[in-house]
Amino acid sequence: MPGKVVVCGVGLIGGSFALALKRAGFASQVVGIGRSRATLEEALRLGIIDRVGACDGATLGDADLVLLATPVGQMPALMQAMAPHLGPQVVLTDGGSTKGDVVAAVYRHLPGHRARFVPAHPIAGAENSGAAAARADLYAERKVVLTPLPENDADAVERVRAAWAACGASVHEMAPSRHDQVFAAVSHLPHLLSFALVHDLAQRENREEFFRFAASGFRDFTRIAASHPEMWRDICIANKSALLGELEQYQRQLEELRQALLAGDAPALEAVFAEARTVRRAWAEGKLD
Amino acid sequence: MPGKVVVCGVGLIGGSFALALKRAGFASQVVGIGRSRATLEEALRLGIIDRVGACDGATLGDADLVLLATPVGQMPALMQAMAPHLGPQVVLTDGGSTKGDVVAAVYRHLPGHRARFVPAHPIAGAENSGAAAARADLYAERKVVLTPLPENDADAVERVRAAWAACGASVHEMAPSRHDQVFAAVSHLPHLLSFALVHDLAQRENREEFFRFAASGFRDFTRIAASHPEMWRDICIANKSALLGELEQYQRQLEELRQALLAGDAPALEAVFAEARTVRRAWAEGKLD
Repeated sequence: MPGKVVVCGVGLIGGSFALALKRAGFASQVVGIGRSRATLEEALRLGIIDRVGACDGATLGDADLVLLATPVGQMPALMQAMAPHLGPQVVLTDGGSTKGDVVAAVYRHLPGHRARFVPAHPIAGAENSGAAAARADLYAERKVVLTPLPENDADAVERVRAAWAACGASVHEMAPSRHDQVFAAVSHLPHLLSFALVHDLAQRENREEFFRFAASGFRDFTRIAASHPEMWRDICIANKSALLGELEQYQRQLEELRQALLAGDAPALEAVFAEARTVRRAWAEGKLD
Repeated sequence: MPGKVVVCGVGLIGGSFALALKRAGFASQVVGIGRSRATLEEALRLGIIDRVGACDGATLGDADLVLLATPVGQMPALMQAMAPHLGPQVVLTDGGSTKGDVVAAVYRHLPGHRARFVPAHPIAGAENSGAAAARADLYAERKVVLTPLPENDADAVERVRAAWAACGASVHEMAPSRHDQVFAAVSHLPHLLSFALVHDLAQRENREEFFRFAASGFRDFTRIAASHPEMWRDICIANKSALLGELEQYQRQLEELRQALLAGDAPALEAVFAEARTVRRAWAEGKLD
């Protein structure tokens, strides 16, 4: 059971990990580090972390478990800054929504620690972010996907698995490239589409009239458009290749629908809608997964 | 206060109107008509309607208020079938999600009743449909948009307004073409986009793996993809022109995002996401409408 846990980035993801581990008795102390002093102090005040640390030997040298929970775009520089201070026993994991880029950064910036860095993706988004949004139960009954490296020590994988399980999550494993493909389709693309719709409407001269009559369907469709812009910018860039593939496939699908609409082809539209409904319902009822 | 209310189509929209009017004491009797005998009998059994009628003089001749609550594609034929049986005092309204097509059908098929047909759109979608989904409170604190005709009698508009208000709705007025433009953007397009995403994923060979990791963002984004295929087919066809315009504008927006992604233009992506988030939050907090 790890004693000293260091969380880099004490927002929703990192803060919730800290709270969950403390509640589970999985951490004897949690030290927070990050780029914003104000956020760290807020996390301290909220009891999310026990102490504010720094990216140095005093904080990292004797850590048992380190979580990188910054936007993924910051992780390479963070790994580079951490590298000289990590002790040989430290197990590392991360909370990034993309995995290919994290794996590449580990090989590049933490080659000496690749046996003990076990990449992970907790599937627990929320449109709120920041330390104040952190909750001990954020990961309860959620999935966490580990994408272990071939070089990972078995005990490091086990420790990371145990930590996420202690947060209440069910832990899965996938190859990083497969992970990025699947999440480009079911998470990254929907976020892009939702941002795009709200942005499109926000440009209208008389946008108030549009938004005044937007109702529950719009509310649900655009909930994820309230997500963190910097985090999602980084995810899109980090998973550019898979996301571009998904976006292009979706653009083809939309163009087919546009052609059907233009032609007034009611049966073609209904066929698409009916299949979507059937599959969406089966998914919601747990009959697809 | 109307005594005899006839509801054509006793699914979610019509059934909820019937239940709400009965609860408000706004109807002394509710007669249901429709194409499906089974649905009518279910509505009777559920206490939604008092009696099953037919499209004839006995049902329609002495009606005080008639609601057309079928998918919009059926309304022209329904109006044509009703025309010979309507008494001169009958006030009519509808629950269609598009208004330009309903107005055109009134002029074409009910020219003698255009003073007393007040088109309406209750903004209360739900992914469930059918009589069993009807609820007396479906319209409580929802908006209903009336698109009165220039020829409407003031007392007919007043009766329709009072009926929807009795259902608990707040009643608004717009021109039909403006209505269709606004709802193409905030309702019809999001439905099309959501159907398209689920349909796209449903085609994948290994779709179970995709859906297995779909989480709450996906759930909300695709809730409306479980909507009624025939209803949405009709809405798309009925509002083809405005919806095509919105879809094409959205396709341009997506293409801009694709170009930014392809170029790795992180600031451009972040700017779109940040504006979307700001506007989405302001809308959710009631600061835009």
